[in-house]
Amino acid sequence: MFDFTEQPHRRHNPLLDEWVLVSPHRAKRPWQGAQEKAATAAPPAYDPTCYLCPGNTRTSGIVNPKYDHQYVFDNDFAALLPEGETGTYEEGGLLRADAETGHCRVICFSPRHDLTLPELPIAEIRKVVDTWTEEFRTLGADPNINYVQIFENKGQAMGASNPHPHGQIWSERTVPDLPAKESRTQKAYFEKHGRTLLSDYLAIEEKSKTRFVVENDTWVALVPFWAVWPFETLVLPRRAVQDLTQLNDQERDGLADILQQLTIKYDNLFETSFPYSAGFHQRPTDGGEYPEWHLHMHFLPPLLRSATVKKFMVGYELMANAQRDITAEQAAERLRALPAVHYKAAAQ
Amino acid sequence: MFDFTEQPHRRHNPLLDEWVLVSPHRAKRPWQGAQEKAATAAPPAYDPTCYLCPGNTRTSGIVNPKYDHQYVFDNDFAALLPEGETGTYEEGGLLRADAETGHCRVICFSPRHDLTLPELPIAEIRKVVDTWTEEFRTLGADPNINYVQIFENKGQAMGASNPHPHGQIWSERTVPDLPAKESRTQKAYFEKHGRTLLSDYLAIEEKSKTRFVVENDTWVALVPFWAVWPFETLVLPRRAVQDLTQLNDQERDGLADILQQLTIKYDNLFETSFPYSAGFHQRPTDGGEYPEWHLHMHFLPPLLRSATVKKFMVGYELMANAQRDITAEQAAERLRALPAVHYKAAAQ
Ligand SMILES: O=P(O)(O)O[C@H]1O[C@H](CO)[C@@H](O)[C@H](O)[C@H]1O
Ligand SMILES: O=P(O)(O)O[C@H]1O[C@H](CO)[C@@H](O)[C@H](O)[C@H]1O
Repeated sequence: MFDFTEQPHRRHNPLLDEWVLVSPHRAKRPWQGAQEKAATAAPPAYDPTCYLCPGNTRTSGIVNPKYDHQYVFDNDFAALLPEGETGTYEEGGLLRADAETGHCRVICFSPRHDLTLPELPIAEIRKVVDTWTEEFRTLGADPNINYVQIFENKGQAMGASNPHPHGQIWSERTVPDLPAKESRTQKAYFEKHGRTLLSDYLAIEEKSKTRFVVENDTWVALVPFWAVWPFETLVLPRRAVQDLTQLNDQERDGLADILQQLTIKYDNLFETSFPYSAGFHQRPTDGGEYPEWHLHMHFLPPLLRSATVKKFMVGYELMANAQRDITAEQAAERLRALPAVHYKAAAQ
Repeated sequence: MFDFTEQPHRRHNPLLDEWVLVSPHRAKRPWQGAQEKAATAAPPAYDPTCYLCPGNTRTSGIVNPKYDHQYVFDNDFAALLPEGETGTYEEGGLLRADAETGHCRVICFSPRHDLTLPELPIAEIRKVVDTWTEEFRTLGADPNINYVQIFENKGQAMGASNPHPHGQIWSERTVPDLPAKESRTQKAYFEKHGRTLLSDYLAIEEKSKTRFVVENDTWVALVPFWAVWPFETLVLPRRAVQDLTQLNDQERDGLADILQQLTIKYDNLFETSFPYSAGFHQRPTDGGEYPEWHLHMHFLPPLLRSATVKKFMVGYELMANAQRDITAEQAAERLRALPAVHYKAAAQ
């Protein structure tokens, strides 16, 4: 039998029905490539040039309110617009375009320009959870919105166009490719087994906890067996619910707690404000029944070796197959071993 | 009918059966995010610290020959290894890993540290084409190799770990996800129509040439209708062949010419050494018949607005769906309008 701690191999992702090539010892190769900028001076609590700070004027001319907790608004430069003609363009059977409508919302996590999720008080993270939940409920109730994508791009390395801690919510008429795929795989599994794919997956992981990072009574964060990004995690509620609105009060607290625990570990890994893209996957909001859907969150962080050297998803990855340089088990072990207290708080 | 030059819409990619969300006017949004380093001083023709320059010693201790044209060798830090146990790991029906074997080769395009493809003499580009062809032939003849992925990561923004002009060739036992998908879509099309999907696609594009960038007697480079990256192109032979070894002498010259024409346009767009990942898609090398396969090359360049501001494939793109900020038609028009002479040569 081959030893997957040592030898190149492929792992299957049952949520996407895709593969990832795992090369356990490749992280040792020399690097004469790009370095990310390391975080320099601490940002100010308020930045007069920031489009997202309270009381500031955005490029659109709109003035932000002097908000105290979260602030949610329609993106001034939205990729999706609520109004527009409908229709399909078709040419020769191979060119096909469909008009698409939707909303792009921005959610400031805090009035503080300098506090990312791991540094916010837990009560504020809980308020972010409540805000996400209400946005999902309201947007999803619109008959023209069939899917709601909540996500955060954190850090320059992950394309955040503004450093003020914020996330986004894009909602639209059509279910996008990746959640549509996860719908299909979860449905096929549920029809066969009568349980959600992610409940059964969690039960397997619970036995050894080899890939667990942090947990509490209601949630688990783990490095999935099929992780692609070096320190990718999957954040799962222990109870199979289909969307945020189905979480009870204790589970909402649990989500705030697991997010705090996980993002503190992340910041502690390289003692830097750890960049990532994160997002929820939830049931479509087209009014259908989705017993197969198991709400979850993906964290996709790019850093590989240090605060300045990231993994590039390029050539082979873009042309052929996902690929990673350390195993999921190595990544989980490193994250688990880190202190539970944020390195900045520990230094005080 | 909706106007796809103005209004957000989705386009279908028939090669991957995936969608891309197109937001024509989003490129105007303010950018307070990451900037790529602009190329600084011109690199030297020979760099004594470079692992790829002729005569230098690599970290593995191996000394590069004093090569005059191309130099191909096995990567010292290969993601795939030729030897290893075989076998499958399986747990609970949801964890699955297969041992994988293969080769990772590096191909230096030129002994010159400072000359990327668009700056090489055409005779040298033709030699690169011949080298790729021979590598495909030799690797593909190995009964343990069922797929050969030839690619190039150019520039720091695309994760090149060393600036010396070079590409890579990863070959392996299993057909990776993306070529496997393209195999399925091309096969379904061929079985239905008796012609390759890309022949019929080229015939549609030939009518208006709206998305053409450059062409010659044997090849076309165009921005595909379903392009994801801002200035993505698809490079196609006019004659449907399945792999590089089936190109005749004139078609090999044509490939060298189209690569030179296209990469000069790319460098001229922002007057910078234009980063990209590029690669060939060809038939699997498992000995099967692949009449549906139409050899092609994808160029995936990240720059969006300038030499320093790129498109990030993050949050929405990683969680939901590919997304782009200008239309394929706008991109093709801008590339077509650029001079055919490299900006550095023009400045001399
Ligand atoms: O092999 P290199 O140049 O060291 O590495 C580069 O190309 C590889 C293949 O696309 C990627 O896996 C790496 O992330 C990238 O940095
Ligand atoms: O909306 P922003 O923050 O300006 O932009 C960022 O997130 C978007 C959604 O993932 C991406 O399309 C952009 O490439 C990225 O820079």
